[in-house]
Amino acid sequence: MRKTDSFHAHHSPMGAHASFTLGMFGSNGGMALEKGKPAEQSVFIGYRSDSGVTKQFPFYKELVNEADRFSLDENSQGVKTISFEESQIQRSYDWAIDKFSAPGIDFSIITPFFEISDPAIENKEALKKASCPSIFGQITIRNDSNEDWEGFFAIQGDNPWTPLSSRNDLKGMISRDELGFASDDPDVSEFIDFGIETALSKEHKTPNFLLGPIGGISFKVAAGTSKTVRIALGFFKSGNVTINKEAKYWYTNYFDSIETVLSFALEGFNEYLDSALDSNQKLKSSGLSLDQQFLIAHSTRSYYGSTQWLSEKNKARWIVNEGEYLMINTLDLTIDMAFFELEYNPWTLRNVLEQFANEYSYVDQVFSPDCNDEMHEGGISFCHDMGVANHFSPNQYSCYECAGIDRKCFSYMTYEELTNWVICSGLYYSKTSDQDFLNTNASLFSACLNSLLNRDNPNPELRNGLMGFDSSRTLGGGEITTYDSLDHSLGQARNNVYLAGKTWASYLTLELLFNALGKSDLAENALTSAKLTASTLSSSFDDSLGFIPAVLEDGNQSAIIPAIEALIYPYMMGQKGYLDSDGPFSEYLAMLKRHTEYVLKKGVCLYEDGGWKLSSSADNSWMSKICLNQFIVHEIFGINYGGELEADNAHVEWQVNGSKSQACSDQFASGKPIGSLYYPRIVTSILWLKAKSKAFNNKVKSEELAKT
Amino acid sequence: MRKTDSFHAHHSPMGAHASFTLGMFGSNGGMALEKGKPAEQSVFIGYRSDSGVTKQFPFYKELVNEADRFSLDENSQGVKTISFEESQIQRSYDWAIDKFSAPGIDFSIITPFFEISDPAIENKEALKKASCPSIFGQITIRNDSNEDWEGFFAIQGDNPWTPLSSRNDLKGMISRDELGFASDDPDVSEFIDFGIETALSKEHKTPNFLLGPIGGISFKVAAGTSKTVRIALGFFKSGNVTINKEAKYWYTNYFDSIETVLSFALEGFNEYLDSALDSNQKLKSSGLSLDQQFLIAHSTRSYYGSTQWLSEKNKARWIVNEGEYLMINTLDLTIDMAFFELEYNPWTLRNVLEQFANEYSYVDQVFSPDCNDEMHEGGISFCHDMGVANHFSPNQYSCYECAGIDRKCFSYMTYEELTNWVICSGLYYSKTSDQDFLNTNASLFSACLNSLLNRDNPNPELRNGLMGFDSSRTLGGGEITTYDSLDHSLGQARNNVYLAGKTWASYLTLELLFNALGKSDLAENALTSAKLTASTLSSSFDDSLGFIPAVLEDGNQSAIIPAIEALIYPYMMGQKGYLDSDGPFSEYLAMLKRHTEYVLKKGVCLYEDGGWKLSSSADNSWMSKICLNQFIVHEIFGINYGGELEADNAHVEWQVNGSKSQACSDQFASGKPIGSLYYPRIVTSILWLKAKSKAFNNKVKSEELAKT
Repeated sequence: MRKTDSFHAHHSPMGAHASFTLGMFGSNGGMALEKGKPAEQSVFIGYRSDSGVTKQFPFYKELVNEADRFSLDENSQGVKTISFEESQIQRSYDWAIDKFSAPGIDFSIITPFFEISDPAIENKEALKKASCPSIFGQITIRNDSNEDWEGFFAIQGDNPWTPLSSRNDLKGMISRDELGFASDDPDVSEFIDFGIETALSKEHKTPNFLLGPIGGISFKVAAGTSKTVRIALGFFKSGNVTINKEAKYWYTNYFDSIETVLSFALEGFNEYLDSALDSNQKLKSSGLSLDQQFLIAHSTRSYYGSTQWLSEKNKARWIVNEGEYLMINTLDLTIDMAFFELEYNPWTLRNVLEQFANEYSYVDQVFSPDCNDEMHEGGISFCHDMGVANHFSPNQYSCYECAGIDRKCFSYMTYEELTNWVICSGLYYSKTSDQDFLNTNASLFSACLNSLLNRDNPNPELRNGLMGFDSSRTLGGGEITTYDSLDHSLGQARNNVYLAGKTWASYLTLELLFNALGKSDLAENALTSAKLTASTLSSSFDDSLGFIPAVLEDGNQSAIIPAIEALIYPYMMGQKGYLDSDGPFSEYLAMLKRHTEYVLKKGVCLYEDGGWKLSSSADNSWMSKICLNQFIVHEIFGINYGGELEADNAHVEWQVNGSKSQACSDQFASGKPIGSLYYPRIVTSILWLKAKSKAFNNKVKSEELAKT
Repeated sequence: MRKTDSFHAHHSPMGAHASFTLGMFGSNGGMALEKGKPAEQSVFIGYRSDSGVTKQFPFYKELVNEADRFSLDENSQGVKTISFEESQIQRSYDWAIDKFSAPGIDFSIITPFFEISDPAIENKEALKKASCPSIFGQITIRNDSNEDWEGFFAIQGDNPWTPLSSRNDLKGMISRDELGFASDDPDVSEFIDFGIETALSKEHKTPNFLLGPIGGISFKVAAGTSKTVRIALGFFKSGNVTINKEAKYWYTNYFDSIETVLSFALEGFNEYLDSALDSNQKLKSSGLSLDQQFLIAHSTRSYYGSTQWLSEKNKARWIVNEGEYLMINTLDLTIDMAFFELEYNPWTLRNVLEQFANEYSYVDQVFSPDCNDEMHEGGISFCHDMGVANHFSPNQYSCYECAGIDRKCFSYMTYEELTNWVICSGLYYSKTSDQDFLNTNASLFSACLNSLLNRDNPNPELRNGLMGFDSSRTLGGGEITTYDSLDHSLGQARNNVYLAGKTWASYLTLELLFNALGKSDLAENALTSAKLTASTLSSSFDDSLGFIPAVLEDGNQSAIIPAIEALIYPYMMGQKGYLDSDGPFSEYLAMLKRHTEYVLKKGVCLYEDGGWKLSSSADNSWMSKICLNQFIVHEIFGINYGGELEADNAHVEWQVNGSKSQACSDQFASGKPIGSLYYPRIVTSILWLKAKSKAFNNKVKSEELAKT
């Protein structure tokens, strides 16, 4: 159970790269588009009594009187504005509704999410509903006093407000034609002013005072009555929004302005609300613990906040931005978020894979670290990403990867991205049985197999199933893995047992794909390679250490949890025979289970708070990967090590206390977020809903666990 | 002479609402569009020796290593980066070239400005040249050492860079397709990186590293040689840029991208440079003191930084944004900037006047403060402004004026804006003899006369020539003047002698316009009214005080310099007979001269530093108005009070020390800028170039002054 209700969360439509970020008390937040961190608006939600006492939620930092920029005037006297204390506020944080309650007032933020139907299949109503760039709010004020109150919802931003009533029959505020909020309640009135008190104490509200930084709506709540007002919070960007390639938001196929978005959203309020309630119910009845439910809800919100559904020459281009970094479709995140997307809309995964295949792939040569000026045939691989902050990189290049760096941040991830693309293809195909995808990419799968093999060793005689050669793109440097900010235990690509796991899974994926294509020779070749990888790894267990060291060179002695990470892939692709303790990989599985049982202890791969530490030698643990590896430990290995509840509790604490100002974050050092803030990747937690055992809530007995 | 070279200045194209703001050492600045304050970029200009020592200008705040957001890595060792000390830097700040010199390097920022031809008259080449949204830089590096150097120009911004070479045959960096810099020198190369040292020490530069925050160009300067590189710094916004009305930048009629802007600018480099040199020469040979030259150059830069030349349905819409406040065409600034615009491009003034007449005028009623529920016929007036930050207000409303405020900031300026529109029309007509303007607005001039008279008193019997009634738009409040942040001495409109001066000038303006229209009855009516105003004012001189009090009611005893402000208008309109000490206003002029001689002393309307204090009762003095009133004191009255040099020196100090972080600012309290920062209005200083006596440099003998 979380120890505080004061933490930011994304509240986002699907695919609009937009968020109404709110929830940390005494902090700014609010509405922003295409931003890698919370907005810096002050949000005012509360009520003012006729006698001049204003009570509101503390959704703002210290207040600055913007009027002082124009004229230094004496402050008003006798005004009383009260922020609710944290102790007066209850927050219920469900999957699609985030509700704050305080004396006299409830405020809910409703963020429906659901399957996005494939845009290639004409279904205008469904696509319009899914792409509508709006979320919802609902304010209920219960006036149990003897005087009349005036409820309000208002935002202080950096840009001027325009009253919505000048555009259509709604009331509300819009700014730059890009964002705004609206109510269709006829009893609501609009105001723009320097302050809530200034606005509401006036005889005449000033909705044309565009100079005022605070735009809002207000409504009377007579003594002894209650009133509920529904609002839509919408976003809109027209025209081309990307640089170096031209694309617009998909929703512009249906909406031509912020006001049409707000109208449509309010008309569909009930339907959207029902959808949100359905999601809430699904999670509540999942059998997962409250901590697990929290982490799923929190990560889902941050995932959608980073999504960007574009239209390019009338075809969809799906993008997930990389949280605070805003990198476009980082491929090593795609693979982690694939589980979530396959659950809701598998077409987005295919869409991204095709963008990589068609625009962001390249062919290189490889070299041995022992002889870095002798080049050998390499093969196809895929870029780390496609650009940053709406700026597309030139084709065949990521914005991230730089030459000349030896196994440090910003070097190439050629090998890992190759495995990521291959495995994602397998996840997609095994979920959808999409024959068109299979056939279209048949020759590319062969090229991937060839590329994997060459990166082991161009000489087939010398292969051991692990990556041994680096890409010529590094210009003599050394490749890294997605764990770019960790030490070599997870950061170095060559001979890394984490990456070797992905190699193994890639070969198994290719076996599956080649079999589906009827190419049994290639399938057999791939399976043979997987066995070689597993064999090398199995024999690398170090009995004196009690685990398999992270990097099979230079006497590395780090213990890492993600040695097991790749087991998820055959599991998800239905290749469960390969996870059978009596199957062809029995030795490999037994070795990894032994490894896991050793490392899951404090001082090795557990922090003192019980949270998981991915590497024994690096104080930098990634929540997305923890969720993924938890599933493997509990659901695939059936290990119940006794610290599950403590771990989840620690991870919740990392998020709500550690990362309270940045919504859901990924990288933590001893519970403090140090990077990958405001991040989409943590939706690996969606896997937990698939856990047959619901093992992590620790309520299932170990006897039951042993059976899985 | 200014005591420091460390201060920000706008460096802007004409009409692009854009600036490359630079010059305060140890501070951020750089390129921004449509912003009411300096950009927050770090700008790196310098050279690096082959042995790894980098020397650069201090155009940045403390440096943050953005790479740390991705991975906490050990810092590089042995790197040496040196910022030039202030004592090593010389700055020559001419009208159109701002040049910084330090050991081994010169950097000039070239901001040509010149007449903008009337867009209504087809002259594509001239209009394209004038609207091209670019300024220029020139770096010269003199390598007198024994090792090779690499010169660089680079910017660290908030948005990703794209290498320009991916777009055309120039080298440089562009961001969001909205701003960038370029060189056409074939020896220049591009880089993007986390730091200058990181970039230049690499064997392979990384121009595709879009994740890097610093984009730049560099060039080799061999030992013992010199090299000069010319760059263009361009801005570009495509499509509709305004809200609530649709307009695009005028330059989009000729340019379709940032890269076409940069190409055109570099092709015209020599021609633009010649224009800048001409401006420099004109100011240098003006006979004005160095302090005066500085204030003219500084204010000119901030004026152009606020200009925004738009195109709406193929017709020009000229906007000057109100500095930090970004209000659109504030009419009480228009009148002060009219002198500058009439010198360079009178059509911009007509354009603004017509926008007010057609969209931002209204008809009200008036009431007496003694009886604020009895309404009388009012008349036409004009809004304070047209909106803010590209958001247009609804027609007939400003973004600024609010009802229900009694003589405080944000109340209505109905009366003053009426005088401003009338006087601007007279200034425009007397400069241009534009008969079309005269005829088009003939009936509006009559309405203005009627409106002025009604605001004195609806009952002709009771008129005294001053404003006595307030607008119904205030809903029972009280009007203010442009001096909204001062006390009632200048802030209250009713019975204010500053505003009464403008009333007098308005009547004289109308006389001129009606005579031009052949409406001699109305002309005579107007002149009679002017005489009534002058007579009332003349008789209000308070012998016991020694000056005319600022407000002719409630026993006000403030002394204000701007009692004389309106004398500038008949002077500029060629109505010099009315300024003749033996003419029809001899008594009024003598009274004002006596007033002026009294107030221009320390403790009354001079600060201890000799700077001018507009009101004896308010510590808030406006530089724009000081420049204007200085001209009147010296050039019209011929007063040489002996403190001229000290005053100009103080005013320079207010700007370069007081407002060093905000370029040219307007409102100062005891030399500290307290509002109206980054402001266009101070171009009233252009008047000094018209001074026949060049009186203010105090070199002309007092005998000569007496003759004028």
